[in-house]
Amino acid sequence: MYHHIKKMMYTVNVGTPDVRFGNMLLEQFGGANGELAAAMQYTIQGWNCVDDLARRDLLLDIGTEELSHLEVVGALIRMHLKPMKENREAAEADPLICIAGGGGVDLRNSMGNAWTADYLKITGELDVDLRSNIAAEARAKIVYERLINYTDDPGSIDTLQFLMTREITHMKAFSAALESLEKSPFSIGRLAVTPGIGSEYFNASTGDGNEGETDMHGPWQSSFGLHPVESEMNGGPGLSIGDIKGIAGPEGRGKQDSGVKAATATDVLTVDPKPVPQTDAAQTGKQAFLRETPTK
Amino acid sequence: MYHHIKKMMYTVNVGTPDVRFGNMLLEQFGGANGELAAAMQYTIQGWNCVDDLARRDLLLDIGTEELSHLEVVGALIRMHLKPMKENREAAEADPLICIAGGGGVDLRNSMGNAWTADYLKITGELDVDLRSNIAAEARAKIVYERLINYTDDPGSIDTLQFLMTREITHMKAFSAALESLEKSPFSIGRLAVTPGIGSEYFNASTGDGNEGETDMHGPWQSSFGLHPVESEMNGGPGLSIGDIKGIAGPEGRGKQDSGVKAATATDVLTVDPKPVPQTDAAQTGKQAFLRETPTK
Amino acid sequence: MYHHIKKMMYTVNVGTPDVRFGNMLLEQFGGANGELAAAMQYTIQGWNCVDDLARRDLLLDIGTEELSHLEVVGALIRMHLKPMKENREAAEADPLICIAGGGGVDLRNSMGNAWTADYLKITGELDVDLRSNIAAEARAKIVYERLINYTDDPGSIDTLQFLMTREITHMKAFSAALESLEKSPFSIGRLAVTPGIGSEYFNASTGDGNEGETDMHGPWQSSFGLHPVESEMNGGPGLSIGDIKGIAGPEGRGKQDSGVKAATATDVLTVDPKPVPQTDAAQTGKQAFLRETPTK
Amino acid sequence: MYHHIKKMMYTVNVGTPDVRFGNMLLEQFGGANGELAAAMQYTIQGWNCVDDLARRDLLLDIGTEELSHLEVVGALIRMHLKPMKENREAAEADPLICIAGGGGVDLRNSMGNAWTADYLKITGELDVDLRSNIAAEARAKIVYERLINYTDDPGSIDTLQFLMTREITHMKAFSAALESLEKSPFSIGRLAVTPGIGSEYFNASTGDGNEGETDMHGPWQSSFGLHPVESEMNGGPGLSIGDIKGIAGPEGRGKQDSGVKAATATDVLTVDPKPVPQTDAAQTGKQAFLRETPTK
Amino acid sequence: MYHHIKKMMYTVNVGTPDVRFGNMLLEQFGGANGELAAAMQYTIQGWNCVDDLARRDLLLDIGTEELSHLEVVGALIRMHLKPMKENREAAEADPLICIAGGGGVDLRNSMGNAWTADYLKITGELDVDLRSNIAAEARAKIVYERLINYTDDPGSIDTLQFLMTREITHMKAFSAALESLEKSPFSIGRLAVTPGIGSEYFNASTGDGNEGETDMHGPWQSSFGLHPVESEMNGGPGLSIGDIKGIAGPEGRGKQDSGVKAATATDVLTVDPKPVPQTDAAQTGKQAFLRETPTK
Amino acid sequence: MYHHIKKMMYTVNVGTPDVRFGNMLLEQFGGANGELAAAMQYTIQGWNCVDDLARRDLLLDIGTEELSHLEVVGALIRMHLKPMKENREAAEADPLICIAGGGGVDLRNSMGNAWTADYLKITGELDVDLRSNIAAEARAKIVYERLINYTDDPGSIDTLQFLMTREITHMKAFSAALESLEKSPFSIGRLAVTPGIGSEYFNASTGDGNEGETDMHGPWQSSFGLHPVESEMNGGPGLSIGDIKGIAGPEGRGKQDSGVKAATATDVLTVDPKPVPQTDAAQTGKQAFLRETPTK
Repeated sequence: MYHHIKKMMYTVNVGTPDVRFGNMLLEQFGGANGELAAAMQYTIQGWNCVDDLARRDLLLDIGTEELSHLEVVGALIRMHLKPMKENREAAEADPLICIAGGGGVDLRNSMGNAWTADYLKITGELDVDLRSNIAAEARAKIVYERLINYTDDPGSIDTLQFLMTREITHMKAFSAALESLEKSPFSIGRLAVTPGIGSEYFNASTGDGNEGETDMHGPWQSSFGLHPVESEMNGGPGLSIGDIKGIAGPEGRGKQDSGVKAATATDVLTVDPKPVPQTDAAQTGKQAFLRETPTK
Repeated sequence: MYHHIKKMMYTVNVGTPDVRFGNMLLEQFGGANGELAAAMQYTIQGWNCVDDLARRDLLLDIGTEELSHLEVVGALIRMHLKPMKENREAAEADPLICIAGGGGVDLRNSMGNAWTADYLKITGELDVDLRSNIAAEARAKIVYERLINYTDDPGSIDTLQFLMTREITHMKAFSAALESLEKSPFSIGRLAVTPGIGSEYFNASTGDGNEGETDMHGPWQSSFGLHPVESEMNGGPGLSIGDIKGIAGPEGRGKQDSGVKAATATDVLTVDPKPVPQTDAAQTGKQAFLRETPTK
Repeated sequence: MYHHIKKMMYTVNVGTPDVRFGNMLLEQFGGANGELAAAMQYTIQGWNCVDDLARRDLLLDIGTEELSHLEVVGALIRMHLKPMKENREAAEADPLICIAGGGGVDLRNSMGNAWTADYLKITGELDVDLRSNIAAEARAKIVYERLINYTDDPGSIDTLQFLMTREITHMKAFSAALESLEKSPFSIGRLAVTPGIGSEYFNASTGDGNEGETDMHGPWQSSFGLHPVESEMNGGPGLSIGDIKGIAGPEGRGKQDSGVKAATATDVLTVDPKPVPQTDAAQTGKQAFLRETPTK
Repeated sequence: MYHHIKKMMYTVNVGTPDVRFGNMLLEQFGGANGELAAAMQYTIQGWNCVDDLARRDLLLDIGTEELSHLEVVGALIRMHLKPMKENREAAEADPLICIAGGGGVDLRNSMGNAWTADYLKITGELDVDLRSNIAAEARAKIVYERLINYTDDPGSIDTLQFLMTREITHMKAFSAALESLEKSPFSIGRLAVTPGIGSEYFNASTGDGNEGETDMHGPWQSSFGLHPVESEMNGGPGLSIGDIKGIAGPEGRGKQDSGVKAATATDVLTVDPKPVPQTDAAQTGKQAFLRETPTK
Repeated sequence: MYHHIKKMMYTVNVGTPDVRFGNMLLEQFGGANGELAAAMQYTIQGWNCVDDLARRDLLLDIGTEELSHLEVVGALIRMHLKPMKENREAAEADPLICIAGGGGVDLRNSMGNAWTADYLKITGELDVDLRSNIAAEARAKIVYERLINYTDDPGSIDTLQFLMTREITHMKAFSAALESLEKSPFSIGRLAVTPGIGSEYFNASTGDGNEGETDMHGPWQSSFGLHPVESEMNGGPGLSIGDIKGIAGPEGRGKQDSGVKAATATDVLTVDPKPVPQTDAAQTGKQAFLRETPTK
Repeated sequence: MYHHIKKMMYTVNVGTPDVRFGNMLLEQFGGANGELAAAMQYTIQGWNCVDDLARRDLLLDIGTEELSHLEVVGALIRMHLKPMKENREAAEADPLICIAGGGGVDLRNSMGNAWTADYLKITGELDVDLRSNIAAEARAKIVYERLINYTDDPGSIDTLQFLMTREITHMKAFSAALESLEKSPFSIGRLAVTPGIGSEYFNASTGDGNEGETDMHGPWQSSFGLHPVESEMNGGPGLSIGDIKGIAGPEGRGKQDSGVKAATATDVLTVDPKPVPQTDAAQTGKQAFLRETPTK
């Protein structure tokens, strides 16, 4: 249940309204990385997260705060858009907002696109959702930074600095929640990947380019057990695709609170008496009863 | 420049076509976390990443491989959808694909929504984009896992296992690329956040819920320098918003290859002789020449 | 500023989950007339309504309650969708929700379309927005009624009855707010319509149809000063379009609270010393200083 | 069946083309409240309204007239956009229209968004649809008013005044059609709402805000049988949700023409021999045979 | 100006309603190749085609007929969807249509996607638009054919046969209009293409595939002056891109009626005294005064 | 399987960046007729075209080349957008690209709309798809021509000339592929149209218009066996709709390579022993075993 307190989370002051800056700010109201997107992503993840009540609380704490941010950035935009009601040239900065919306804020981005739930990343797999949230906070931070760089108005800078700061706070909280699951870093879901081919970095872009680029090397080809493999198209052996023989086995699950585990579509399939073919030596010896015949 | 070799990256075999499973598989062809989304996100990030040619190569290696995956998953879907051309009941599994598309694969998800670039997360800030890519690979992995759980066809499982495995390979490569930037973990962009308020975890969701949940505690309230703050609405002091006084200072940039730095919209604003007001004691002593008056 | 209390506004109980009914219920979560649409429409209208603080309070009271309803209907859906995680046939009821979303609720309607702000009707003209809200509540009521007609589960019926009832409560409140403005019923905005042609009901659809219909008559052709006019295409005189000669004059404004007036884009144009051409006898005698040259 | 007469409903004259005003005018061609939206909403409502042939005629009369308006506003826009074909600066006013569309009119709004049927409000419940139409006409009127306020061209003003006037004419006709149904004002559909909780105005937004607002009172809290109730979050008793016990009973239907009734999804469910539980004293004594077990 | 005659262009009779077939039929009402798409594409092309009044008449003749078809296919769908109002299982065929729309027809396709103007192909270049229309009619024909193949109801087949037949009629009319322009077949717009590189068929897909395909040959590599060129990636010389040196010269315009020419964005740029560099020998000797400095 | 070579297909040079021209160029990157749309349309058609391996090769040759073009036009745009990172006024040319995207290229058009698969025309009927491709190439050619007309930068003109030229090359190849099928020009699919009514050109738009237009005549009323028919609404006999009596018979199929035929949804229905009613004399004599009872 929600309650609204009329006092905003941050008091917005604008010196000289700047209509085109107000239009830019719409990115954080109705844009892909804006406050409604954040509020909805975390809140809905939280509502779906019924198996880990502690992290559900986290998701709703931050989801709710983002609604308060939506109100703050909306007030900032509204103040910047004010001249639009009186001035034809100002109206040209965003005719949709002005002519259809009367010059108020609306759930659209700086190019007038309506907000869409296609912006959201919600999988119902807790550790995956936390990774999506960490990335989302990083994106929101850089967008606020760019907005700060395009205004001189001190009140606007203060408001944006407040909102930008909170994104990093949330990024820290989501990172802590992910780490506290104590799951191994590249273990996602319950099915193990195929070991051999999983370690091959495939070199699919080669040659020398028009802007000085060439076929370079970096730790991404040799970290975490990876090694580079040349494409057949570049004279190499290609991926060892002959290795794939169905399901490789189960992954370990992370530690969760209250003894409950994260929701995943695979949970119900773990009591299958049919052994899963194992190709990974590391998995041999383990009994793998992973899949049952899906109910049809 | 691209070249297409008719041999697919993985040879697809389907035993008994399963039209409704073919419809589900469309999630990975034209869906939000599917192969075209991956291919386009990494490739366009790569094209834009002109200041770090080594990681540009990484982005194009993986972006190109995802195009090859799109072809593989498309072949798998096509084989499962085949009965749709002959059979009215099969056609009902996806009438848009059957009636408008002739029963072939199309850039739509399992509920018929056209693929949209709104699925993509591209900011042009290299470390932010890498975080988005790590999360994207995690999402793609869990989607493949769920698909595997809904089929018994061995050939389909093999193909999906191949594709699922490669997502983790890519997740490792993106993680290594991020780590190798050697940037501090919560430093995003070039503007520092406000120190005091940045450490406050705000408790915006309280009380006891209908499904056993309550106001819980976890490491996310106390890690990375965070501490919890109660909302005024819950009798607490609220956030220390009085602390915000504009830009807090510059962040450190990560190590990048070839001495070049990642592109960011703020780069060009670093030669401003006007000192930025500093509110963070930790920043005092540093000269902060961060912002210039934006060119108008 | 928002606060979330974990206790829901209505406690949801579901007897036997019904996955396809859960899919239908998505209409009221992520659909065009659902709870998020209501919450966003009223809340954003409220944030923009800075000139009538009393009705701003109304808009935020109801907008906030709709957020609580979103949580309630979300819980109802989640309980109905639960079998989707375990059962292939259940998964086919909404593969997007199941495969991509893990079986939780998402901001999509019953056919999988992502929620879009294109559903919202926000003009920033208070009495117009109230009319849009009255219609929105009527639509939401009938959708809940249809949903009730497709379930037998008592707990689901109770929840839907609660939500359906509240829509009528809100419809009453919006109607009272509109009436209390004491504006004449067909006066919208500040510009008067052209009197003669404004009273002509144009008969553009004629003849006898395939399903018994014919060219019928009703009070809509003769109420509120209207009279019917036959199309030239049906041998009639057509509309008296020769009457149009620019702006007909100002409309009266409604009574608003605290002496403040509703926001409208035309407010700033009322001090123009250039008289507006008057074609309506009823308007003659009035001085009309309505328009100024827009600032360019 | 449709016929097109080349003479337009209103002859458009433009003095000096104004490309950016032409772009603004697109709101009424391909925008959310524009002429195609009106034409499609009323026409499709009419095609579906097979049980009230008199009001079906009304819907088709007005729906058809809106098509003629689409042609008129299209001609006006085309004349204003003409310089776009010759002039780079003019092209910048709407590059999509110019580069992709050759400078002609297109089904897009002033920010280039493609027209979508998501703009339409069609429920198939006649009195609900009429309310949506009244609101739609009010919105269209205010949009025309704002457009008039941003031009000085006399020919454009005349055309817009014509179109604006007709919106009010249609608003009157839809209002008369709704009133002539003689249905009680807050009776929607066939299911009655729960009496007690239906009269509670819930105060969900409280406190003192940043722009002078506070928790205000108005007729919307006490009209039509309403009375205010304080939220638990503000120390009040909250809604009397314990009152909800399923379906409260049937509503009266409005008077319709030719003895036919409006289409509603619930019509077929009225012969159920299973009595509906009644919780409202006012309903006691009535036999309620409202629901049958839905056919499964 | 439009007029509606209640008699439909084709009288629809349905024997046994088939809800899931009604859902499929939505492709031709609110789908990408459906009747509204056809009506809007041709009508708006016609409104924009002010320089060739004869073909403007053609576009409006056919555009208007498509509106009449929309009404016919809408009636067919409505009759098939009728059981949806009474029957839960029928409702599951399209819950959006049933729950939100009351079981009537709506501007959506068979998977519930809202009609969008993104389906339309309108360039304002007459011969290009005619080619788009020829392709559109071909698509509509095949969609009607597939629908006929999925029903046994004689009345439905008759209606669909009528609509399918008219698409070919329109295809013939558009083809005749294109041929009567007497423009050379691959001359589009006013700028000539570069001769050498324009004749090179580039072999970008090579090798042997999984389904028997290989690098094949056909007339498309050697007709109309084309000859095949091997990619560098396949050991060939690649395209002769060194040939490109700006604008190659003007194309001839087609014969149009009344001495008027088709609208194109380039028309106004033909009086430039600055000679265009010519790389094609075939063009030498001609004076090329094609471009002026665009007005900025 | 795809491979990427870093050298681009055409080397892009830009003299003076022109941000607003860069914004216009987005039409060919993420717009409706742009390079991604072309690449995806042809490639997916090719993947689905498993019954004509020769033309499958054609579709993949050209689809792959369009990916290389996407890279080229992306590089051109990126160079033009470069000032956006440093300059507030430049940022206003496309704030979505600048603020959200960091000033790089993105899959959006010149008005910021996200690329959508709704742009694609894919039916799985080979000759229909080839017609869609011919029209698509014509559209792409005229868009490049318009872009050339709005720049003076020689390097940009060269690049656009290269891309424009290739569209005509592809148009020739698709035309040759269509012709080589040797199918009669208006034969689409396998079902014949009704002969009588199929030859009637219906005059649905009549009278004298406001811009000199009138009811004109042209070869489109009398070519290919057509003759004009007046609407009942204009005093004529109307279409001879009484002629329609179900399916008229089979059409001939075109010559295809390797003895394989194009995929169509109707192929499987050709063994039906139930004779199709024949109304066309020209079809008499042929046995028509076209439809079987669809499998239900």
